[in-house]
Amino acid sequence: MTANQQWIYARKPNAQVGPGNFDLHQAPMPQPKDGEVLVRTTLLSLDPASRAWMQGQTYRSMLNPGDVMAGWGIGEVVASNAHGFAPGDLVSGEYGWQQYAALPARALTKHDKAHKPEHILGVLGITGLTAYFGLLDVGKPRPGETVLVSGAGGAVGTIAGQIARLMGCRVVGTTGGADKCKWLTDELGFDAAVDYKSGNLHRAIKDACPNGVDVYFDNTGGEVLAAALSRMNVYGRVACCGAISNYDTGTPAPGPAGVPGFLVTKRIRMEGFVVMDFYNRRREAEAALAAWVEQGKIKAAVDVVEGFEKMPEALAGMFAGANRGKLMVRV
Amino acid sequence: MTANQQWIYARKPNAQVGPGNFDLHQAPMPQPKDGEVLVRTTLLSLDPASRAWMQGQTYRSMLNPGDVMAGWGIGEVVASNAHGFAPGDLVSGEYGWQQYAALPARALTKHDKAHKPEHILGVLGITGLTAYFGLLDVGKPRPGETVLVSGAGGAVGTIAGQIARLMGCRVVGTTGGADKCKWLTDELGFDAAVDYKSGNLHRAIKDACPNGVDVYFDNTGGEVLAAALSRMNVYGRVACCGAISNYDTGTPAPGPAGVPGFLVTKRIRMEGFVVMDFYNRRREAEAALAAWVEQGKIKAAVDVVEGFEKMPEALAGMFAGANRGKLMVRV
Repeated sequence: MTANQQWIYARKPNAQVGPGNFDLHQAPMPQPKDGEVLVRTTLLSLDPASRAWMQGQTYRSMLNPGDVMAGWGIGEVVASNAHGFAPGDLVSGEYGWQQYAALPARALTKHDKAHKPEHILGVLGITGLTAYFGLLDVGKPRPGETVLVSGAGGAVGTIAGQIARLMGCRVVGTTGGADKCKWLTDELGFDAAVDYKSGNLHRAIKDACPNGVDVYFDNTGGEVLAAALSRMNVYGRVACCGAISNYDTGTPAPGPAGVPGFLVTKRIRMEGFVVMDFYNRRREAEAALAAWVEQGKIKAAVDVVEGFEKMPEALAGMFAGANRGKLMVRV
Repeated sequence: MTANQQWIYARKPNAQVGPGNFDLHQAPMPQPKDGEVLVRTTLLSLDPASRAWMQGQTYRSMLNPGDVMAGWGIGEVVASNAHGFAPGDLVSGEYGWQQYAALPARALTKHDKAHKPEHILGVLGITGLTAYFGLLDVGKPRPGETVLVSGAGGAVGTIAGQIARLMGCRVVGTTGGADKCKWLTDELGFDAAVDYKSGNLHRAIKDACPNGVDVYFDNTGGEVLAAALSRMNVYGRVACCGAISNYDTGTPAPGPAGVPGFLVTKRIRMEGFVVMDFYNRRREAEAALAAWVEQGKIKAAVDVVEGFEKMPEALAGMFAGANRGKLMVRV
């Protein structure tokens, strides 16, 4: 029997990941224990998040040097010690970067061979589900709205953009290079594409989204996020899917580039609000606040500066942190 | 009759605002036209957002040099040419920084004199409503959760923190200086306070929030936002109220400091997600995706690299933007 080739995650990248971070290793053929299945890998998925796994804890624990590199794959059952799996079955799971894997049956999903393995690992797998739920449930696009997708040439972006088009939206994608832009519009039906490498990103997004952006599906973070935020319409929605611009570095940016990374892993919602939007419910709030103040449950801290002539310095003082509670000037 | 003193917003600040940006002006006493009311200002509110109004368009149009400085006030009706208003009435409105204002009746709100004017302009006014809806409707705190409030010594922060405490939350505030910290805990009932000027902000927030942060009510943006994000719990909520750290400058920061400014004005929701959370609905998505692929409505772009030995360079290539659609390696 042949040995099992594995790619070992050998050295943590200091900056960009590359072949130097991995070692090819010949391991013995794994033997499936009771309840386990031996699979031969046929396709391995490459996902941007894999770089983030090297950097620290995300929605999974950090990878450590010496581990078989993690990743999803699809393949064929070679031998089975588990009920419900037989040689020849098409199965997917987190195989890691190796030619063979022995895994517990519960860690595997069996697939209908009517679907292409490439689709099972892509549009019908986590990639497609990410695009589907991220766009529809988080972004909530409505017909006629403009949806901007960054990383639009990538796995999730290509699907998210096409779903947005199916929803009747104007769809704009950002990607790198004129060729990929042309591919997005000519082959995948995007209404417009922006080459984020071509210079004035803010201007290009403005031109491509003349009515602003209602939903921004963010795969990249970074400069595209910053530019997209400046074009969002009122009540716009930003679905933070990932931050590929910030994964492949040893020193993640603290700026907007870093923000979506925080949000994604922990499913954090960040939402702007303006109190005027709640004005139809102000009586409810006023009644609660008045009662709390009346009952002494809330102290209404008031900082009154005496004298109309103090207005400008009171304003400046507020930015210097001079006030305690609500600052006002008695005229 | 006395003249009307006004503070004119005379010169746009290049950096921090101060007395040099305003000129005191003696204007003629305004005369109320038909349907208008003449009010004498007694209290003027100072709000962080007023600095943002000088910088550009927000939820209101930008202030221009030469304008009477904008701001909310409360005062007494001196003369009325409008139905429903009489001399001596207590009224509030956007008076601007001036001792007298003649305003249309519809721009004024009449108040019950049972409430203190300081409360009407503060806890019972926009300040209190902002804290109430921002915390309860956007932050959605639950009993036992940890709520972190930045700018906790300010108008909105003092109220938001106290409401959070009423909801049964552990409440931590950030403010500047040991005195204000002590005031928050000793007088306003915060469970802990962090002096953001005292050095290691990340560490101090970690110590003050040993169970992480469930709701972050952000009045400041900037470094506190960055530190808070790193302590958020899964499914945490960030209510973006304002970004005072970023208002009082001519060059707003592009980093996290700038992000909430974008979000607030346009009521933008930014929400992280992880596809696994939607797994109970994956059949719905798989069926939709399979049908769209089947019907040719979605093109499942697949980029297959041949050869297991190419794994590391395929990964590196993805970060260089080499792939089109879903990247995978045929083993």
